[in-house]
Amino acid sequence: MQREHEPMEDSPVSVAVCQTFPRIGDVDRNRRRLLEEIAAAAAAGARIIVFPELATSGYVFASKEEARSLAEPADGPTVQAVAALTRELDVVAVLGLPEIGPAGSLHNSAVVVDRDGLRAIYRKTHLWDRETSMFTAGSEPPPVVDTSRGRVAVLVCYDLEFPEWVRLAALAGAEMLCVPANWPAGPRPAAERPAEMVRALAAASTNHMFVAVCDRVGKERGVDWVGGSLIADPDGYPLGLSDLTGQEQRLLASCRMEDARDKSVSARNDVLRDRRPELYHGLIGG
Amino acid sequence: MQREHEPMEDSPVSVAVCQTFPRIGDVDRNRRRLLEEIAAAAAAGARIIVFPELATSGYVFASKEEARSLAEPADGPTVQAVAALTRELDVVAVLGLPEIGPAGSLHNSAVVVDRDGLRAIYRKTHLWDRETSMFTAGSEPPPVVDTSRGRVAVLVCYDLEFPEWVRLAALAGAEMLCVPANWPAGPRPAAERPAEMVRALAAASTNHMFVAVCDRVGKERGVDWVGGSLIADPDGYPLGLSDLTGQEQRLLASCRMEDARDKSVSARNDVLRDRRPELYHGLIGG
Repeated sequence: MQREHEPMEDSPVSVAVCQTFPRIGDVDRNRRRLLEEIAAAAAAGARIIVFPELATSGYVFASKEEARSLAEPADGPTVQAVAALTRELDVVAVLGLPEIGPAGSLHNSAVVVDRDGLRAIYRKTHLWDRETSMFTAGSEPPPVVDTSRGRVAVLVCYDLEFPEWVRLAALAGAEMLCVPANWPAGPRPAAERPAEMVRALAAASTNHMFVAVCDRVGKERGVDWVGGSLIADPDGYPLGLSDLTGQEQRLLASCRMEDARDKSVSARNDVLRDRRPELYHGLIGG
Repeated sequence: MQREHEPMEDSPVSVAVCQTFPRIGDVDRNRRRLLEEIAAAAAAGARIIVFPELATSGYVFASKEEARSLAEPADGPTVQAVAALTRELDVVAVLGLPEIGPAGSLHNSAVVVDRDGLRAIYRKTHLWDRETSMFTAGSEPPPVVDTSRGRVAVLVCYDLEFPEWVRLAALAGAEMLCVPANWPAGPRPAAERPAEMVRALAAASTNHMFVAVCDRVGKERGVDWVGGSLIADPDGYPLGLSDLTGQEQRLLASCRMEDARDKSVSARNDVLRDRRPELYHGLIGG
């Protein structure tokens, strides 16, 4: 299952998480902002650049029709413009957008774009709340893409709450899991880090891989957001962490991708080899 | 799969996690300490009382022979003495001990004992480091026991790092996952909560159930411990939390067990029903 991997380089890769404020309905403006931010992050040294879920459209759609009116094919204008830039800069961009699939269905998707153009389309598989009445859920596992900057997997927001799904990415050899997200804010004890962030950190150490979550900010039609972006190392500790002030923010962290290839956690333990898959049958079936 | 559940009461259940310092090799002393602590916790109002992994024996065995010399059958003197007390006090005790199985094999086990006596024996399935050369790994999923104080599941320490295993307990209807642990201390960033605790909190919210981890303290043959006991609510926030000073400590929290029966996290979402088990086939197989 795991393909041979010939890393381009073993030097650290600088990763940027661009916690933006997409404006609902203004695709032109949001697309322009993505391109500006890719250029700025690359100028700051970033080689993998992650954006929020539905970064071109905003999130709180009034109707399925509105969502559809803001969607585009995966090879549409957004990816074309992003690909021109990722080719020029030799960077990897991961971003969420509403996608009109080949058969006309509407998806909450994320794309991986690098110097070779569009490398992967992922369609959110575990849908959140009103998304269930707007989007068609995907049914393909998180793609794991051998980019020039490392082996990158992608899933979207609520997908991350399913350790089964995260594990599939790790088993397929992901070194870094990129997670475009729109985390709606909820109540929490004052002294505690939001549970969404806690689960993301746990996903990193559980699978001994990097996790880069890009959340959004900016109240939209009454909905506010955690704004809890982070970059976690394979031990589950943050290399970059949102300041939780609800402002746009770019996190930048240096990631030794090879650290995620070694899954050992003691002289005799390895988080993937220690699994007992022959005992996990209760997890599957319809 | 999920049996009908007739809760005895829907009032909150007081749960104690007794973070003790077991003395290596001194089973008589450690057993006495367990009994004293059950009585004290019950007097403080606790109805579910959780102890560390290998609480009767200590952990850092010099050899398999030493481990075996400190082991006993699951219905041996420790469980007999504990059961006499849990019967008298109508409490549930969960504790770890080295167990000699029916066929003479040695297991790192945990037992659930309540007013009806020994209710379940669980044998650690994912073994840590030198345990692999001392203990025979279990091959049965975490038991979920309908006690008079709620539906309680148990697994041991490193088992908790496998979200697959935790999920099986949740799918079988666990309201509270009890985790006897001996977490060896490792390096971490000064401002961060130990990753072991982060994973335990994430396990709670991911499955919307209570998680009660009882870690140990007390340096033993050169090994120190996180001492990171906690009681997490179904949203993944701590109700009780070790102060991380490395001292013996009893955490006490009031848990509304029925909160863990409702798995909804939005008007349209439920953390178990939202799973896509038909897509999780990659998790199983040998």
